[in-house]
Amino acid sequence: MAVYTHLGAEDLAELIGHFDVGELTSAKGIAEGVSNSNWLIETTGRDGAGARFILTMYEFRIEVEDLPFFLSLLDHLAAKGCPVPRTIHDRDGALYRLIDGKAVALIEFLPGVSVSHPTPEQARSVGRALAQLHLASTDFPGARANAMDLGESRRLAEACGQAGMASIDPALAALVERELPLLEREWPAGLPRSVIHADLFPDNVLMLGETVTGLIDFYFACTDLTAYDVAVTHAAWCFDGEGRNFSPAISAALLEGYEAVRPLSSEERAALPVLARTAALRFTMSRAFDWLNTPADALVVRKSPMAFARRLEFYADPAHAGVFARS
Amino acid sequence: MAVYTHLGAEDLAELIGHFDVGELTSAKGIAEGVSNSNWLIETTGRDGAGARFILTMYEFRIEVEDLPFFLSLLDHLAAKGCPVPRTIHDRDGALYRLIDGKAVALIEFLPGVSVSHPTPEQARSVGRALAQLHLASTDFPGARANAMDLGESRRLAEACGQAGMASIDPALAALVERELPLLEREWPAGLPRSVIHADLFPDNVLMLGETVTGLIDFYFACTDLTAYDVAVTHAAWCFDGEGRNFSPAISAALLEGYEAVRPLSSEERAALPVLARTAALRFTMSRAFDWLNTPADALVVRKSPMAFARRLEFYADPAHAGVFARS
Repeated sequence: MAVYTHLGAEDLAELIGHFDVGELTSAKGIAEGVSNSNWLIETTGRDGAGARFILTMYEFRIEVEDLPFFLSLLDHLAAKGCPVPRTIHDRDGALYRLIDGKAVALIEFLPGVSVSHPTPEQARSVGRALAQLHLASTDFPGARANAMDLGESRRLAEACGQAGMASIDPALAALVERELPLLEREWPAGLPRSVIHADLFPDNVLMLGETVTGLIDFYFACTDLTAYDVAVTHAAWCFDGEGRNFSPAISAALLEGYEAVRPLSSEERAALPVLARTAALRFTMSRAFDWLNTPADALVVRKSPMAFARRLEFYADPAHAGVFARS
Repeated sequence: MAVYTHLGAEDLAELIGHFDVGELTSAKGIAEGVSNSNWLIETTGRDGAGARFILTMYEFRIEVEDLPFFLSLLDHLAAKGCPVPRTIHDRDGALYRLIDGKAVALIEFLPGVSVSHPTPEQARSVGRALAQLHLASTDFPGARANAMDLGESRRLAEACGQAGMASIDPALAALVERELPLLEREWPAGLPRSVIHADLFPDNVLMLGETVTGLIDFYFACTDLTAYDVAVTHAAWCFDGEGRNFSPAISAALLEGYEAVRPLSSEERAALPVLARTAALRFTMSRAFDWLNTPADALVVRKSPMAFARRLEFYADPAHAGVFARS
């Protein structure tokens, strides 16, 4: 989490001049994003009353050809009333611009803070917002394959290797060897598909009290099983950071909130355990790969793969079959 | 430049509740400060119209016993009309609070951006603002020794050692050995004293166009020769980042702007070359020490000591005696 590129005031003022948002009055590099640099920008606004924006410079991992998908998705969802930040188009209507060969986008600033210890009522609101996003995205014309699907988990497992996984935790390789073929076999490919956020951690939700004011950071958004997004969000919200403690109250509230807006079909409901295991495996493997491949002098703090391996064990445990049962 | 401590939304909301500033609506960690963590905070404001603040957590280097000096200095200067951010006192009137044993202060947010390539007119405004600060500080009751004085440059030179300096640049040790005793001998101790900023780099000045909207980051402020602050600011503003190119136009404008508000005495004027060499040596030595003592995995980017060694050579060169001559 850092600002990777220095943009001087002169560069920023020149850039902001390409948008109809008034004149630059403040710019602070913010410590968010691991694959991009972000600035909180203030301008005089179109009416002189002041306005704020997030300026994002895409540094790594994100392909420029994917930007139209991410940025026009924000516009589509915002137009349908979802709490997502709109993309500010430049004076020529473009969704992003280039500075020194790097793409930059100007995004609406939304109020709200990311909670560290969600309450059940906050999880209920997040469930509702996620369902609203799924309904609103059904007529979005764009499509993008899920780059972090089960196939990628397999590739990452092979890249880490048995020795690499063993260096993280003695039990990790066996867990992955047990789960990966099982999940590949049981993946419920016939379920309904839509655009999904695919990374809706508490960090990526802005809230004021129990109200969701912003769903942000859509850079893993893709087209995949709708119910898989419920599973990702479940894995992200219902455990403590280390994946040791599961909260039944948060789990129930999240699912209830979701179903108050978009009821899950019986098939989706029945698939949730497999989807949640797949989600837990996806974060286990991406974190394991990053763990083994992050240089010691990197600006990024490595996240524990085992926090998600524990979730995977939790979801795979038959004793927890009731978590996703219809109440 | 990083946020060293994670403060969750719940911690932040609790903290903000101790101030009469409305309710927390946004908090973004900002990538500023090397010895502290900073957040750009938004609240509903006392009147519901919204307000912004900088929250600073003091992490390293800054002694808590110095905080009353720094923070009440801001209040004193702001009350006299200087463009500095006020300290927001908590409901009990305290200048700072403690979280987990670390001091945190809430500071007024000021608009403006830091220029990378100042124009002469911007330097003129900075000169005026610096002189205004000096006049406004004359009746400030606090005092603080300059921890980065010539004695500290000597200590840092000894800590770096000949070998350490040689590892940075073959010419560095000889330069320091020539300058240090000369400057100790010629230090003009009898000149007028006041509170000085002592670190007024472009990074620490917020501007809108040619107007100074904020002088910030007072954590080197101390009581020392007033004209020494002019010399520090001169060294900080009149060269490119590498210290290779001197701008006579910026130099002249900075000094003219300063003297339009607080004319330098003949003695101060005559001392400027020695003061500027001392300032250049001070940053050479602190950067050299940091260069040799910053671990490879640190979150901080090391700054080149030679960028200030070059300034030191510039100021010591008799061919440049005219820089500080009365025009």
